[in-house]
Amino acid sequence: MTIVNENFALLSESYLFSEIAERVRRFHESTNSDDIIRLGIGDVTQPLCPAAIEAMHRAVDDMASSTTFHGYGPEQGYQFLRDAISQNDYRARGIDIASDEIFVSDGAKSDTGNIGDIFDICNSVAMTDPVYPVYVDTNVMSGRAGANVSGRWQNIEMMPCTFDNGFIPELPKSNPALIYLCFPNNPTGTVLTKSQLKPFVDYALEHKSIILFDSAYEAFITEDDVPHSIFEIEGAKKCAIEFRSYSKTAGFTGIRCGYTVVPRELIAYGRNGEQYELNKLWKRRQCTKFNGASYISQRGAESIYSEEGKKQVKSTIDYYLRNAKILLEGCQSIGLQATGGINSPYVWISSNRGVSSWQLFDLLLNECHLVGTPGVGFGPSGEGCFRLTAFNTYEKTIEAVNRLKRVSI
Amino acid sequence: MTIVNENFALLSESYLFSEIAERVRRFHESTNSDDIIRLGIGDVTQPLCPAAIEAMHRAVDDMASSTTFHGYGPEQGYQFLRDAISQNDYRARGIDIASDEIFVSDGAKSDTGNIGDIFDICNSVAMTDPVYPVYVDTNVMSGRAGANVSGRWQNIEMMPCTFDNGFIPELPKSNPALIYLCFPNNPTGTVLTKSQLKPFVDYALEHKSIILFDSAYEAFITEDDVPHSIFEIEGAKKCAIEFRSYSKTAGFTGIRCGYTVVPRELIAYGRNGEQYELNKLWKRRQCTKFNGASYISQRGAESIYSEEGKKQVKSTIDYYLRNAKILLEGCQSIGLQATGGINSPYVWISSNRGVSSWQLFDLLLNECHLVGTPGVGFGPSGEGCFRLTAFNTYEKTIEAVNRLKRVSI
Repeated sequence: MTIVNENFALLSESYLFSEIAERVRRFHESTNSDDIIRLGIGDVTQPLCPAAIEAMHRAVDDMASSTTFHGYGPEQGYQFLRDAISQNDYRARGIDIASDEIFVSDGAKSDTGNIGDIFDICNSVAMTDPVYPVYVDTNVMSGRAGANVSGRWQNIEMMPCTFDNGFIPELPKSNPALIYLCFPNNPTGTVLTKSQLKPFVDYALEHKSIILFDSAYEAFITEDDVPHSIFEIEGAKKCAIEFRSYSKTAGFTGIRCGYTVVPRELIAYGRNGEQYELNKLWKRRQCTKFNGASYISQRGAESIYSEEGKKQVKSTIDYYLRNAKILLEGCQSIGLQATGGINSPYVWISSNRGVSSWQLFDLLLNECHLVGTPGVGFGPSGEGCFRLTAFNTYEKTIEAVNRLKRVSI
Repeated sequence: MTIVNENFALLSESYLFSEIAERVRRFHESTNSDDIIRLGIGDVTQPLCPAAIEAMHRAVDDMASSTTFHGYGPEQGYQFLRDAISQNDYRARGIDIASDEIFVSDGAKSDTGNIGDIFDICNSVAMTDPVYPVYVDTNVMSGRAGANVSGRWQNIEMMPCTFDNGFIPELPKSNPALIYLCFPNNPTGTVLTKSQLKPFVDYALEHKSIILFDSAYEAFITEDDVPHSIFEIEGAKKCAIEFRSYSKTAGFTGIRCGYTVVPRELIAYGRNGEQYELNKLWKRRQCTKFNGASYISQRGAESIYSEEGKKQVKSTIDYYLRNAKILLEGCQSIGLQATGGINSPYVWISSNRGVSSWQLFDLLLNECHLVGTPGVGFGPSGEGCFRLTAFNTYEKTIEAVNRLKRVSI
């Protein structure tokens, strides 16, 4: 008799964004309204930059001839892309990350989910709250989260990030083995400066913990003292894994490409104290359960490191950042607590009326035909809050703010 | 202190094909020989068909305009592709598989590896021997394989497939919960007829086991009584998951697209006997740890179901099948035991001299400049055997046979 992994039964059946899609579908069915403005799921809307389009056309052509055909690529990614990443995303910023510390993949969602494979189930976990649901759900699936007692996972310490603490989490209290951090943060759009991130690195070094650092939104950073990579902090190569994605950087949500950096010097332990190099473990995991990202996607990703590509990608990021500023300032102008939006495509607001996140969702959908994401969907500290994204057009963003001004939130 | 998943330490550090690549690299370095013929790793060599090239160019163009841009797609795959699969791969053969039973992915290697996520670690496993290493290694990584005692995994029953039993495995003896079958088989190239597959379905139904059926090579089937899908066997929808890939069907090894069929009626159990629908569990797994296959890859896959696409894909398969026939008949003509090659791109041979697989590998590399895959790399029953693939050119396949004729194997 086959036994299922019953940890799945601990999860709510539907993923947050499926529930949102369902409510929007029902609203659409009952009203037939066509002027819904979607600032909900964090999906980009602008077309890919010309450099990526040209590179991918060339890559498709490569596949049409046996002399330029590419079959299985290296599971860790093509050298041309790993070299471009090492050079442009790291060495150009004075960070010493080599090609063989970089693992190209089909995206950060897969990597942040799959990274759990290389760690024992016994490890305790800490993460900021609110948080990207994938971190929680994948730890629940594997059994690492433990039981859910009164809405809290036994083996996960949540580190609240709220308007009250300025979205700067306190250091963990439970001596966790794995610490998930995401900055610029999804969902709040807030950041840590280098001096605010450093205590986490020091903590991890002292406690022999590993930081799982998601910097999928680093391309949106505009302020000087905000680190693009955790490896800008001294000692981080001994205690951190970093996840990056082309989804938001270059609009690759439908193309699927990202990467993970596992420094060679990063070690963790066996139950009897043996040392293991995590770079080798992740390589073995990827070689066994993954067959490389699409050649076409990798050529597309490579193209954004060209001079033209860099300019074009920046122009789209600037477009979204202008939207983010409009949202942030618009929300603030009507007296809402609002943050994010400066180094991030996300703006995080709080209701002044003390209503719940889902009440806010329904209110904005019904009154403004506006779709956002209920903050509580990202964790208990998100209750009463709401995430808006800058990933719509300039015109619709302006219109969204005008609609917000007409209701009392 | 962070503890690693020490099951990784049970694996050999390098994956089979990495070891082969390393030996070939050393040979190349020491001889500078340029006339190595590679019949080793199962990677295709012919360019993609024109229908796929055109479809992918169109898909790239879609990404260049905001009106046709595609961001995040459904994690389970686009409806256009799931419908094409349901219609062409199943309903056209009289098999009732609906779109929502089909989960498009970045390939069968990921899916056959990741499927373990939805099953409890306690389930015992059976698989044919020799076997695709991913089935073994992923069960070792998760801990499901148990300890390795004298070269055998405690919790995995190997079902030998050898020249002696005509490559028809006996039914398992250990009442396994999960049974991996791959037909047409990798590595042996052998098949089961419908009447030979049926006892496995009956066994699984009787024992409430789940068959994990890998039919990545179904496009190579030429004989009428060989099932393309396990769902051609009555009752299989209650006991089987099927994995398919465009890698060999359409040369997509570098494009990355495949799919997995989890019938809605397929259930497994909780420890207290509760019933769980596996379709829902796999959907939850994919929605949480995967973000969909590339839009471009999915458009490419869709194109092979057009009239032109079907003809073009068949023509490439026929090209490889002609090579396979040349290899099979060539090996038989020099007195070798050889099988496969009729419904498969693989030919499986056995040494007449009783040498080991790796000795055979070194002999063929040194004497013939020919790279194949040592059978023992696929499991203990592969010792003394060797896999050759039809994925080279016609000319090099002829030359490979000529070289084989010059040595004593």
